[in-house]
Amino acid sequence: MAVEALAQKVFRARIERLQGDLASRGADGAVLFSPQAIAWLTGYFTLPTERPLALLVPRAGDPYAFVPGVEWDAASRVPTIGEVWRYFEYPGPAPPLSYLARRLKGLGLKRLIADAPGWGRRYGYEGPQLSELLPGTVVEIDPALVEGSWQVKFPEEIELLRVSAEWADRAHRLLQEAIRPGERELSLSIQVSAQASQEFLAAMGEGYGGFLRGGTPVSAGIISGARSALPHAMSRERTLQAGDVLISGVGVEVFGYSVELERTLILGKPTPEQTRFFSAMQRAQEAGLSACGPGVPLREVDRRVRGVLLAEGLGRYLRHHTGHHLGWEGHEPPYIDAFAQGEMRPGQVFSIEPGVYVPGLGGFRHSDTVLITEDGAEVLTRYPRDLRSLTVEA
Amino acid sequence: MAVEALAQKVFRARIERLQGDLASRGADGAVLFSPQAIAWLTGYFTLPTERPLALLVPRAGDPYAFVPGVEWDAASRVPTIGEVWRYFEYPGPAPPLSYLARRLKGLGLKRLIADAPGWGRRYGYEGPQLSELLPGTVVEIDPALVEGSWQVKFPEEIELLRVSAEWADRAHRLLQEAIRPGERELSLSIQVSAQASQEFLAAMGEGYGGFLRGGTPVSAGIISGARSALPHAMSRERTLQAGDVLISGVGVEVFGYSVELERTLILGKPTPEQTRFFSAMQRAQEAGLSACGPGVPLREVDRRVRGVLLAEGLGRYLRHHTGHHLGWEGHEPPYIDAFAQGEMRPGQVFSIEPGVYVPGLGGFRHSDTVLITEDGAEVLTRYPRDLRSLTVEA
Repeated sequence: MAVEALAQKVFRARIERLQGDLASRGADGAVLFSPQAIAWLTGYFTLPTERPLALLVPRAGDPYAFVPGVEWDAASRVPTIGEVWRYFEYPGPAPPLSYLARRLKGLGLKRLIADAPGWGRRYGYEGPQLSELLPGTVVEIDPALVEGSWQVKFPEEIELLRVSAEWADRAHRLLQEAIRPGERELSLSIQVSAQASQEFLAAMGEGYGGFLRGGTPVSAGIISGARSALPHAMSRERTLQAGDVLISGVGVEVFGYSVELERTLILGKPTPEQTRFFSAMQRAQEAGLSACGPGVPLREVDRRVRGVLLAEGLGRYLRHHTGHHLGWEGHEPPYIDAFAQGEMRPGQVFSIEPGVYVPGLGGFRHSDTVLITEDGAEVLTRYPRDLRSLTVEA
Repeated sequence: MAVEALAQKVFRARIERLQGDLASRGADGAVLFSPQAIAWLTGYFTLPTERPLALLVPRAGDPYAFVPGVEWDAASRVPTIGEVWRYFEYPGPAPPLSYLARRLKGLGLKRLIADAPGWGRRYGYEGPQLSELLPGTVVEIDPALVEGSWQVKFPEEIELLRVSAEWADRAHRLLQEAIRPGERELSLSIQVSAQASQEFLAAMGEGYGGFLRGGTPVSAGIISGARSALPHAMSRERTLQAGDVLISGVGVEVFGYSVELERTLILGKPTPEQTRFFSAMQRAQEAGLSACGPGVPLREVDRRVRGVLLAEGLGRYLRHHTGHHLGWEGHEPPYIDAFAQGEMRPGQVFSIEPGVYVPGLGGFRHSDTVLITEDGAEVLTRYPRDLRSLTVEA
């Protein structure tokens, strides 16, 4: 499976990049509690619960996983993990992190960097922090230790995003074809997500994995009518009607990577009012897309987008900034904000998604995923953006 | 919609229970950052991001919501929330929590209890903790302030769980009917989840909501073959074969509440070995189910279950304890563990789910959801548990 091979290829490079960071900071090892960071580094995906789980990355050599009974067998099968340290269960006879501390002491590590003080309060977990259990060891806390690394993509990660983008476009085509008056919001989303996921899985072939039971690799949904003016609305089982504004959202997870693709659609002939807001949003998005490139200050991209919308007198309809970095997580820093620090860099991937939200009428937002390159920017999601293409017959 | 009315009814009671706690602890108000706690108290479901969001519950009167631009319009529509405090965006010109601190000062609150020191590090969020911004105010941190309250269910919550249980049984019937050799694990899960969700939504009627775009209210899935021996395995697109052991999992979310229903199934005529492990697991689960009741020590339930499995010589195949509290979150404390403190209380809801995991052969686990009553226990999930009912023709 070409896609899986691509995903497997990067783990070693990621671990080595972290080990290089540890060496330059004079640390003996990194202790990672973040399940996202562990998955990104090693390909070991877990279902995090109240039971603590951690990864030790020593300055040289293979990582060690520290896991509860429910993960013993799974952790042992992960090719990038050398040794698995086991405890049975939480709460158990002693705090789970005390077993981890004993193992760390056994390796004689003197200076550690951890991404958190201990296991978070997931599902009511309570327990001591790592530093309390390691009195002779320096434990520096740096939550950005690993997550900083996924803010510039490896070439393999960009390939995974390209696969995601291709399937997102196909799923959006299916979604748009299924939209008609009388359909219901949630039912339609579920039906299209299932159909697009089946096609995706068939193409990926037998053995493809990386998803939770009951989840779908492709998710495609809509918010319709006046509720589309709520930028983060949850779907409801509302019946679609002629005259509706709709905002769609499509994601396709490919070994943890997904692009973001969102479109504003009009069900029936657009009214002059709908056309005005759509067109202003589209011009603002175009200003944002064309502003992207290496060395461009993040705040400059936001300024250009906002400039278009403010010139139209739409200031009171704005509810958020221009976009965010993405790929491994849905949102990642940095953010394209009026007050953001820093510049765009080659290998970064951003959403460009200005929105205009008109209470009572609806919301107008496209979101596209843009790769910053050495000499410009490439829009990975290519679904049509113009009003004619996004008008659905009612 | 009867189910929605039921869900709405409890919010006021929950807020008042918290206000009673605040009064007895001498606090002027609670500041909640946990999105789960905010949703449970007020019915306000959000999509948490890097943008801080909080709820202030004063000792008397309606709660205040503190929200970013993407939530302005949604927060204003929540009936249980009095006033909405707004900031535009993160990162923005000043730390979002500084606006919250100014509002709290404006109300003259002197003593607060918060469920966290500040907004967590979601999606790379960085910012000061609340206490740093409120030098004249006492801010006590108590992460269990609200989550402790959902460990004993209100009668309305138990009704929501009954609806969930009824639909979980129906969804499991659909799932079992669809299992056959040649089907693939993930495809089958996606297909059945979509079908069961459509039936569920049709029964709930127009306007039903509370789910994310692309999500399904019913999730039904399986892990098959040797990978069923990994207790928390992720599904893969594996092809089912005669002779497989399967572990199913079904959940139905009804306004945030879900039961847990899991079964071990055999595809084809069970071998003597499969029968032995299935039967030991089933007897252990029966021992657990019949041990439940008010006043029963949690560790006693675990002891009885383990006793059955150890007497069979299966100790090396155990990977976890007997179960966990559940309902609002998938896992909630307390846990049914050999070292757990405390007793079962009326109104609590537990999973009873002993497992036997045989490397290379498969996993054997049923999970049922049990309500502790005044005079005993009631199993909410009634799907058949015996081997004959769970044998699927190959």
